[in-house]
Amino acid sequence: MALIVQKYGGSSVANVERIKNVARRVVQTKRKGHRLVVVVSAFANTTDDLLEIAKAVSDHPKEREMDMLLATGEQASVAILAMAIHQLGEKAISFTGPQVEILTDRSHTKARILDINTSKIESALREGQVVIVAGFQGKTVTEDITTLGRGGSDLTAVALAKALRANRCEIYTDVDGIYTADPRIVPNARKLNHISHDEILELASLGAQVMQSRSVEVAKKFNIPIHVRSSLNHSQGTLIVKETPKMEDVVVGGVALNQDEAKITIFAVPDRPGRAAKIFKQLAENDINIDMIIQNKSETQTTDISFTVYKRELARALPAVQKAADLVGARSVSCDENIAKVSIVGVGMRSHAGVAATVFEALAKKRINIEMISTSEIKISCVVRRNKGKAATRAIHQAFHLEKRKKRTPKRSR
Amino acid sequence: MALIVQKYGGSSVANVERIKNVARRVVQTKRKGHRLVVVVSAFANTTDDLLEIAKAVSDHPKEREMDMLLATGEQASVAILAMAIHQLGEKAISFTGPQVEILTDRSHTKARILDINTSKIESALREGQVVIVAGFQGKTVTEDITTLGRGGSDLTAVALAKALRANRCEIYTDVDGIYTADPRIVPNARKLNHISHDEILELASLGAQVMQSRSVEVAKKFNIPIHVRSSLNHSQGTLIVKETPKMEDVVVGGVALNQDEAKITIFAVPDRPGRAAKIFKQLAENDINIDMIIQNKSETQTTDISFTVYKRELARALPAVQKAADLVGARSVSCDENIAKVSIVGVGMRSHAGVAATVFEALAKKRINIEMISTSEIKISCVVRRNKGKAATRAIHQAFHLEKRKKRTPKRSR
Repeated sequence: MALIVQKYGGSSVANVERIKNVARRVVQTKRKGHRLVVVVSAFANTTDDLLEIAKAVSDHPKEREMDMLLATGEQASVAILAMAIHQLGEKAISFTGPQVEILTDRSHTKARILDINTSKIESALREGQVVIVAGFQGKTVTEDITTLGRGGSDLTAVALAKALRANRCEIYTDVDGIYTADPRIVPNARKLNHISHDEILELASLGAQVMQSRSVEVAKKFNIPIHVRSSLNHSQGTLIVKETPKMEDVVVGGVALNQDEAKITIFAVPDRPGRAAKIFKQLAENDINIDMIIQNKSETQTTDISFTVYKRELARALPAVQKAADLVGARSVSCDENIAKVSIVGVGMRSHAGVAATVFEALAKKRINIEMISTSEIKISCVVRRNKGKAATRAIHQAFHLEKRKKRTPKRSR
Repeated sequence: MALIVQKYGGSSVANVERIKNVARRVVQTKRKGHRLVVVVSAFANTTDDLLEIAKAVSDHPKEREMDMLLATGEQASVAILAMAIHQLGEKAISFTGPQVEILTDRSHTKARILDINTSKIESALREGQVVIVAGFQGKTVTEDITTLGRGGSDLTAVALAKALRANRCEIYTDVDGIYTADPRIVPNARKLNHISHDEILELASLGAQVMQSRSVEVAKKFNIPIHVRSSLNHSQGTLIVKETPKMEDVVVGGVALNQDEAKITIFAVPDRPGRAAKIFKQLAENDINIDMIIQNKSETQTTDISFTVYKRELARALPAVQKAADLVGARSVSCDENIAKVSIVGVGMRSHAGVAATVFEALAKKRINIEMISTSEIKISCVVRRNKGKAATRAIHQAFHLEKRKKRTPKRSR
């Protein structure tokens, strides 16, 4: 009798039929004899509707009140799911985040979980209840309601799996699992049976929005396996697991395309120590997330610094960048939204030479110019023109034969 | 510097414009130097929308989960109102019922308030905050969310006024106050400046749904004056106050028409002691509310018993009545939905003779037949045919000259 944490996202409970479908899945799992904790997101669109009213009454809603407002979405969905499960004759009880004492810090709209008191959940499980917990939310020590930010329901699920020492954590979504690339871009992309925590972390940060990074970080830290699968069918999804020796053989796990970033360049920064630090400190103070950073040392006394930021933060970023540029005595600032970032990820890259070469060659063959390159131990990212992004993704996918399973271990098969 | 509790009903926050209007009123009151606690209902329609989803997934939703679901309505409205007040530059903080520890019993969907811990509210008031509290909801000692039933937000407001020793309790609605009769039925009905707790209790139970009985009972018990007024204009409303000697002079305060009841008659009940008790015990066990009861002692060995019940409870009532009738050996049961109940209420009736005679005469003049009569110290109710209800209401209103203020004290003016 396993203890399973299941999480259903907003698209899985988007309408009455889907809610009933989730209830049926939950009851099936329960009747196999498992103990079950179910984390639910708000119904699709609920959050948007609430945000719209907030926007109509206030230019800059306070974050505490936003959390108060948004937390109602998940509270409604857990109650409705409990009713749907009762209707199928199974015992179920719903709880808000505060009720099960998901204790967070005071960072409203992006709170971090500090502790979970599992006694209420465990007691309900002992009664044979399916325990339904509102995702995305918690409370501070002074009982203020907090929310966990983007992907917060995943985080709730993983944190509960950890706190309850669950045997499994299943994340239900509207896709079948994690693919070697976005199937809308690469039609012969293949669903992965396994992927490592590290790889999914890189993929998440690269724009393949399968799971939110924070929840995977927690899963990695506590070695919690996650099963990402579809709530709409019963096919096996993708297991996110700790890296295993066998996985080392897999050079490249997947290709991701990110079109959400823009490139900012600061021209002619005086080439003296501490100038870059000054610039990025300025941006950090304005809470702007930087992704890739490229600096080419020039032969003159100045250097150009380029970096990418999220487009949604661009309006806040540009004034801060201009201020930083003035501060360090740079010449000018430019901004380019017309870029795409293509990245390959794979734990096997650590021990395999020639991966970068294969990437660059694949792009060159398609006459795709590379504007920025950045690498980590298990990742290579290239910035290209936006209109070349999809072609670049397909070219790399093909170069590594990701559509074929056995070709994921090239050294052995060659 | 007074401490004021204001309550705004669902129609006062039915759309963005009205929410902003409420925010302006609140800020106006605050800027007069008062300390302010605001109780808000769910936005109009929110509750209906939630109920619809519940009905779609479950035939008989559990009451605990209904409370979990419905409480989200008020939680959303307090957050939005706080934002709208912030937008006007005033400090405000929202709380759910559980957050301010409105402690109730476990009677989900109709919970009774046991205690309120005011420390959190008082601390926020000391900080100069407008304190916004979600109406209609509380929690049990084990942190389950409860709701207070119909008119629950009024009850929250009155209970808070009591617990905080507020100077005033203002109930904002979409009507100007309490009238001598429903202006849609009696066009020259007059708005009352004052009415006693007892009178409003009779009016509420008689179908003039101005304020829910439980909240008036609490207000009466703790002698809390309530000001019922419109959120849409600034005219004075009606003060619900403790009975004063002067009020004794007012014979009749108002006329109410109730078309929500049905009459049930049990024919030929063997006329022996304890039979009536058996019948009504049976109904009480089925949680059916009885209003008027009439029993005419017959000259034979049997008697007919008639009583009225709410039409919405009729489907549950009839089988219970039939069972009770069989139990006591009665002959048959009949049901009549085609009735209306017209009632007059006034504390002055205690000391004024002839009120009943005036009522019966007024109806006789209009050739309206009276089918049942029931009286209390400050009330006379008559059941008539449903299609005569409005004419009866107008006839009685006219007979007591309720449209003219001075005629409310006939002894002095005559």
